Amino acid sequence: MRIFQRNEIAPVLECKSKIIEAVKQGFISHAKGEIENPEPVQMLFGVDENSIEGDCHIKTASSKSLPYFCVKLATGFYKNPALGLSVNNGLVLLMSSQTGEPLALFQDDGHLTSARTAAAGALAASLTCSKKPRSLGVIGTGHQAELQARWIASYCELTDIVIWGRSVDKANALKARLADLGLEVETAASVTELCQGAKLIVTTTPSISPLIMAPDVSPGHHIIAMGSDSPGKVELDPAILGRADVILTDEHFQCLHHGELGHAVTAGLIGETKDQSFGLALKNPESLQLDSETISVVDLTGLGAQDLAIASFVYDTLITT
Amino acid sequence: MRIFQRNEIAPVLECKSKIIEAVKQGFISHAKGEIENPEPVQMLFGVDENSIEGDCHIKTASSKSLPYFCVKLATGFYKNPALGLSVNNGLVLLMSSQTGEPLALFQDDGHLTSARTAAAGALAASLTCSKKPRSLGVIGTGHQAELQARWIASYCELTDIVIWGRSVDKANALKARLADLGLEVETAASVTELCQGAKLIVTTTPSISPLIMAPDVSPGHHIIAMGSDSPGKVELDPAILGRADVILTDEHFQCLHHGELGHAVTAGLIGETKDQSFGLALKNPESLQLDSETISVVDLTGLGAQDLAIASFVYDTLITT
Repeated sequence: MRIFQRNEIAPVLECKSKIIEAVKQGFISHAKGEIENPEPVQMLFGVDENSIEGDCHIKTASSKSLPYFCVKLATGFYKNPALGLSVNNGLVLLMSSQTGEPLALFQDDGHLTSARTAAAGALAASLTCSKKPRSLGVIGTGHQAELQARWIASYCELTDIVIWGRSVDKANALKARLADLGLEVETAASVTELCQGAKLIVTTTPSISPLIMAPDVSPGHHIIAMGSDSPGKVELDPAILGRADVILTDEHFQCLHHGELGHAVTAGLIGETKDQSFGLALKNPESLQLDSETISVVDLTGLGAQDLAIASFVYDTLITT
Repeated sequence: MRIFQRNEIAPVLECKSKIIEAVKQGFISHAKGEIENPEPVQMLFGVDENSIEGDCHIKTASSKSLPYFCVKLATGFYKNPALGLSVNNGLVLLMSSQTGEPLALFQDDGHLTSARTAAAGALAASLTCSKKPRSLGVIGTGHQAELQARWIASYCELTDIVIWGRSVDKANALKARLADLGLEVETAASVTELCQGAKLIVTTTPSISPLIMAPDVSPGHHIIAMGSDSPGKVELDPAILGRADVILTDEHFQCLHHGELGHAVTAGLIGETKDQSFGLALKNPESLQLDSETISVVDLTGLGAQDLAIASFVYDTLITT
């Protein structure tokens, strides 16, 4: 069994186009029913009636088209900052699905998850951005916001980037960090302003109330919502999904449970089968009719198939170099 | 995070009495409801209608009385021997339940599980063997049979050991391996002969049909059944449980599902609440009335609490030495 530290993994995560291709195949395999995703394990710690101190989630995935399966542990302990520790910890194990042998432990500090999430955003953006350079709107100012900007910029032709965050300081800081992209990067004073400037938008916040409201959205908008990865989170006014011509979900039932889709269905604005498969859209992008007259939403909640795809790619790369 | 290989772990597993004490506290914590055991994950590989090529089980446990939680992966790939590989692989992760940080990876090749299972047998034997030296009957001739003999001999006063296995050669080989114990070790020609010679008996086989039959059992027998760890396995004639004065189970519902208890309940020989908690018996052994007139069965199916107890003990020992 090989043990890989974050500093060994980091250079491989720079191979954006190859990772995007691997993650794309993961989404397609998932959509074709080739991925096994057992029910995740959830452990809670320090639970009282009003709060929990920590949690651990264990997600597993195997694929008929890969010789590996992966087990991902992710912990969040919310009192850690007071101890000078990060809230999140975790690791990824890659095992042989032919012999059961443990092959690799990635002590990745969550970087594999960050990268596979960024790859998903780039793939979602590619569904509309292949025709001409576009302006990208980024809502959120954290680590994933930065990654989305970088990965989408690497995969799609952009003219410029517009950032909005609740904190003006953090938005300016992200703008400064993105200076090396060689693109014009600006901040927007409001979500409304951002939506007026960019038709391609990615949202990357842990918001628990909608940030983009329906009046902000007009024909041609393609919105990639990354933030809603657990119940209670929401980034889009459900009425946007009510108006959308196309809704793509990475996993129908997961998005119904805790994605943007679920909020719109619960609000009675759409039927629960209004969505289409993101993986199948990646397989046959020509089947989508997205243009300057359509409104489209990509609802991404995160798949084990992505974890397996990136861990497999990184492992294959590291053992052959 | 520390990585411990089997050769680093092995010396700690020689601390039998300390491990037995740690595992005892694990059983007691489990019985008191202090252990969280989320539903295990099961992944199957190469499934066709008649067979599977491999499986992976992931078990987790946390305890209110330990600062750790553990995640155990165990795989079985049944075509491995043809590749010169062992069927079973696995590893154990120990994590902080205070900060979520990964603390240790044990690449133990299943040795932690073997030792915690041996410790359970020693504890079960101790419920009757504290009064006077006894003869121990061992049914089975594999690795766990040897461990049971060694661990019970280390914890209880024995006069001699009698072995029975389906293979006479393997029984003789186990007899030879146990020569260093300084006890008289013999093989029995039949289970009936073994039961006549030993009142304290441990069964350690993967049998799918009963090995000890009801007529073999008489007052004073204390039978520890270790083998039934999954549906379909059975070592004891269910009628033995029908006649038993005391039935102890490590986990009531687990034993009902795939332990000896379940077979006897399904056969209509006992009510499903005939058993008592093994952990509570360890906490208050004087509450048990086991003597030369009683028949008792200990049904052990394996607990996450044992994995957590031994992993915690080994970790604490390794980081302080």
